[in-house]
Amino acid sequence: MTTRDAQQQPVPDSGGSSTNSGYPTPAWRKEYRAGSRPDLRVPYREVRLTDGRTVPLYDTSGPYTDPGHTADVRRGLPPLRDGWTDRRGDTEEYQGRIPVFPGRPRRPRRGRDGAAVTQLGYARRGVVTDEMEFAALREGMDPALVRDEIAAGRAVLPANVNHPESEPMLIGGRFLVKINANIGNSAVTSSIEEEVEKMTWATRWGADTVMDLSTGRDIHTTREWILRNSPVPIGTVPLYQALEKVDGRAEELSWEVYRDTVVEQCEQGVDYMTVHAGVLLRYVPLTARRKTGIVSRGGSIMAAWCLAHHQENFLHTHFEELCEILRAYDVTYSLGDGLRPGCIADANDEAQFAELRTLGELGRIARAHDVQVMIEGPGHVPMHRIKENMDLQKEICDDAPFYTLGPLTTDVAPGYDHITSGIGAAMIAWWGTAMLCYVTPKEHLGLPDRDDVKTGVITYKIAAHAADLAKGHPGAQAWDDALSDARFEFRWEDQFNLALDPETARSFHDETLPAEPAKTAHFCSMCGPKFCSMKISHGIREEYGAELDIDQGMRAKSEEFAAAGNRVYLPVVGSD
Amino acid sequence: MTTRDAQQQPVPDSGGSSTNSGYPTPAWRKEYRAGSRPDLRVPYREVRLTDGRTVPLYDTSGPYTDPGHTADVRRGLPPLRDGWTDRRGDTEEYQGRIPVFPGRPRRPRRGRDGAAVTQLGYARRGVVTDEMEFAALREGMDPALVRDEIAAGRAVLPANVNHPESEPMLIGGRFLVKINANIGNSAVTSSIEEEVEKMTWATRWGADTVMDLSTGRDIHTTREWILRNSPVPIGTVPLYQALEKVDGRAEELSWEVYRDTVVEQCEQGVDYMTVHAGVLLRYVPLTARRKTGIVSRGGSIMAAWCLAHHQENFLHTHFEELCEILRAYDVTYSLGDGLRPGCIADANDEAQFAELRTLGELGRIARAHDVQVMIEGPGHVPMHRIKENMDLQKEICDDAPFYTLGPLTTDVAPGYDHITSGIGAAMIAWWGTAMLCYVTPKEHLGLPDRDDVKTGVITYKIAAHAADLAKGHPGAQAWDDALSDARFEFRWEDQFNLALDPETARSFHDETLPAEPAKTAHFCSMCGPKFCSMKISHGIREEYGAELDIDQGMRAKSEEFAAAGNRVYLPVVGSD
Repeated sequence: MTTRDAQQQPVPDSGGSSTNSGYPTPAWRKEYRAGSRPDLRVPYREVRLTDGRTVPLYDTSGPYTDPGHTADVRRGLPPLRDGWTDRRGDTEEYQGRIPVFPGRPRRPRRGRDGAAVTQLGYARRGVVTDEMEFAALREGMDPALVRDEIAAGRAVLPANVNHPESEPMLIGGRFLVKINANIGNSAVTSSIEEEVEKMTWATRWGADTVMDLSTGRDIHTTREWILRNSPVPIGTVPLYQALEKVDGRAEELSWEVYRDTVVEQCEQGVDYMTVHAGVLLRYVPLTARRKTGIVSRGGSIMAAWCLAHHQENFLHTHFEELCEILRAYDVTYSLGDGLRPGCIADANDEAQFAELRTLGELGRIARAHDVQVMIEGPGHVPMHRIKENMDLQKEICDDAPFYTLGPLTTDVAPGYDHITSGIGAAMIAWWGTAMLCYVTPKEHLGLPDRDDVKTGVITYKIAAHAADLAKGHPGAQAWDDALSDARFEFRWEDQFNLALDPETARSFHDETLPAEPAKTAHFCSMCGPKFCSMKISHGIREEYGAELDIDQGMRAKSEEFAAAGNRVYLPVVGSD
Repeated sequence: MTTRDAQQQPVPDSGGSSTNSGYPTPAWRKEYRAGSRPDLRVPYREVRLTDGRTVPLYDTSGPYTDPGHTADVRRGLPPLRDGWTDRRGDTEEYQGRIPVFPGRPRRPRRGRDGAAVTQLGYARRGVVTDEMEFAALREGMDPALVRDEIAAGRAVLPANVNHPESEPMLIGGRFLVKINANIGNSAVTSSIEEEVEKMTWATRWGADTVMDLSTGRDIHTTREWILRNSPVPIGTVPLYQALEKVDGRAEELSWEVYRDTVVEQCEQGVDYMTVHAGVLLRYVPLTARRKTGIVSRGGSIMAAWCLAHHQENFLHTHFEELCEILRAYDVTYSLGDGLRPGCIADANDEAQFAELRTLGELGRIARAHDVQVMIEGPGHVPMHRIKENMDLQKEICDDAPFYTLGPLTTDVAPGYDHITSGIGAAMIAWWGTAMLCYVTPKEHLGLPDRDDVKTGVITYKIAAHAADLAKGHPGAQAWDDALSDARFEFRWEDQFNLALDPETARSFHDETLPAEPAKTAHFCSMCGPKFCSMKISHGIREEYGAELDIDQGMRAKSEEFAAAGNRVYLPVVGSD
């Protein structure tokens, strides 16, 4: 069936994703930091301020935003990492199962003679790979620290040898909090062109990885186009394609069908895979009295299979064979929380934590095979029960990177679940979650369109950055400081250009004060000139600056006041 | 100047706010709970489910959503509370300063012979007022508890005797978290009609109070129209109108000008007033090295005045006279944090906390005069420094209700500050903040329009409800449970109608699956029939329900497994 898939390839027109080329403002410019070799150039976004200074920001948009680049989805992106893999000389090319991409014919690679070609394997052998150096430079971190975090299993660097187009990045508690954007067509709607464009659109706004959750027609071909054009790691849930192969009848799934699907996706270059190996037969009864049962697609499919066959989950019984496959391509596990809670009432229950313990065990097994591992987390959790999730995961899963969906902090706001979940996401990331899976306004209601994807990504960039600030990540606050300086100095253009979304910031300002002079006006459009607190603050500094900063009397008075514990004397008449 | 104001009254056409009459869905219906007397009827929203059951929800929309009601902004709302005030017999009517409202001529009231006609005064004398009973029924709380919380200063019930149109509500840590919506025109834009309509629009979506921050033309008249048509308490910052009286020259402000302005607003019926009495001369130097100086309008105005005159803040030196005025009308203090931080870098600094200590002292003085008190809080604060704000406020301000603006958890997202602040708002409310002042997407950029007001209100209702859940407020989770039941049972219409915003939820679903049958479809539009986890969960329960719930073997197995600490045996090959 996948072969039929492969033959009937609809070819997206190149206009598809080139519409996402370039930045939303000319003040943003793609620059590169040089690594230890000419072919190791690390991209970043330079924000040019009106006073000539620049602010460098982490960038995920890939070559699409390079000044010279002209996008052609039919040719795909340049294979940045092929040379690095060649140089290591531990992989072999072979005849793959499904030749699919016309633009750049290639044969898949895999580790030669079962060599562990995983970043975890190299790190454990003390090697700082090109990927590690690239990712370290990108984060402003020491490459040796990156190697050590990966070696300890506290961070992952998802980089399938068959996805050379991806720019190496890190997922781990010591590094910047990352976000994932889900895309994917379904039986109900959407097309290949749309999905490729959603991917480039999501990365343009800051998605660090993209998961292709396609479940409909042309599932294999859609993913091929996404991979060949993606500058970020791509994740999938292979179970979805396996289920398509058995025409949606869960009970007809088998290890063999699943294994073949995984191998096909490894050959394509999928960087990480969600595997629901923790949904054990004996856990299913624990969900019987839940309010919303099993809400994970993969979890419900495997639960149905277990009950139909009265056998243990084949992903669990064949887990070590699966490790051997992923290890040959350096595909990272994202151990799926198939029993995550689907509502506030089901949060932190026995089913959820029983599965989490199993995921911890599986993580140890995977790492024993040199396979990188992330652990997936909830879901729907009220604020006061979020930290327990993070603390338990750290304890049970040996500090493996936690990758959570939200969590949503209330069930009552369908249509606004990017916000109900953004609250929980910021909190759990502050407490240690390494990557946040975004939620769009369409969650629970429909498939996200282009605007929903952007809203979801921006909301999660906010949650991730708020967490970086709270974790005291070195350098995180420099961005806030630059924007606040621009705000206080009425450099409106700089304020717009330093914003996560310059287009929206500028358009909102224009709605109230469209006139061009307003862009240099020394007052805020909310208050008008007389009532602008910042304008008044400036007046105070101009008129009384000397006094405020120098006048010993006043300074002394306020120091003495501070020394006195800032206590104020007041004549109190009566008392309560 | 205000007299001129008063004469040239533009009269809004009655269409103005009647456009906000009625609920967004016919499944919502206004009902009333009977109190101890016929004229004590407590409104609530009844959500009617498709299976005939109903879910009662707290409602702030006022008579506009009563089945029979036809709105006429020129006549105003019925004076619900006049009879209650009459019955107490401790107020007197007198000739007010500015006759303004044509629709229902009235003379202002005040406490007779300096009687303390405040809810705090009554509570301390052991009286459960009609307002307390009303608010208690509204929250499903014991009226005696309400009285005791008010008597202790841990809760306020803002209810100026000259705003009889308002429906009594509570602000306090023991009660449901409340939200405030700011409206108000400025020198730059907007009109009276727009402001009245923004008020009814905000309360329709859930605003518990509204602050009129008008600073432009017709400031007095605008407020009069808002008050006469508002079912919720109205707050103001009298300093803004005082500044208009001296043509925006801060140094020309005086206690006399300010006092007259306050009296005029007391006579109009303003329920609570922000007073920046904590901005002391000696604190101003503490802001000199800040990144964004003083960002509160009132704070910057008073700082400028203090420096210009080299005198102490007249709001501070005349604070007790001010208490005597507010006490005569039962106007609640909202002690303003004029030195709140305006960016992440300035959070929790010496200036902010020095002022907070003064606000604590002033609160004790106000309560000594039987005047109700709230304390205002920040601002911009990174997540890891939010709790310190709440803990210090509780300690310094004797558990007086905290009323915070956000806080915003990062500075980098202008255009999305409802989200950057919704994160901080949910957290600080969980930790004890009683009322959250909303932030709209236009914050820092422009004046909110109708859509921005709705987005701000819905975002803050999410933060407030998430906090109610986290605080374990009795009954809060029933709402989430009802919606999640509807979701699991594919009762789409009920899911829409139980949402904070049924219009948006329904329209998002229609975008993907417009067809009417989809409203009863047993699958989610995201996944299509084959991949709907909930559909599969149902299948599991139908086919294996007996087994899952009854089969002793399986149940026993899973219990024994749980007893064994949920540990899973797995053959571990190698180990890390």
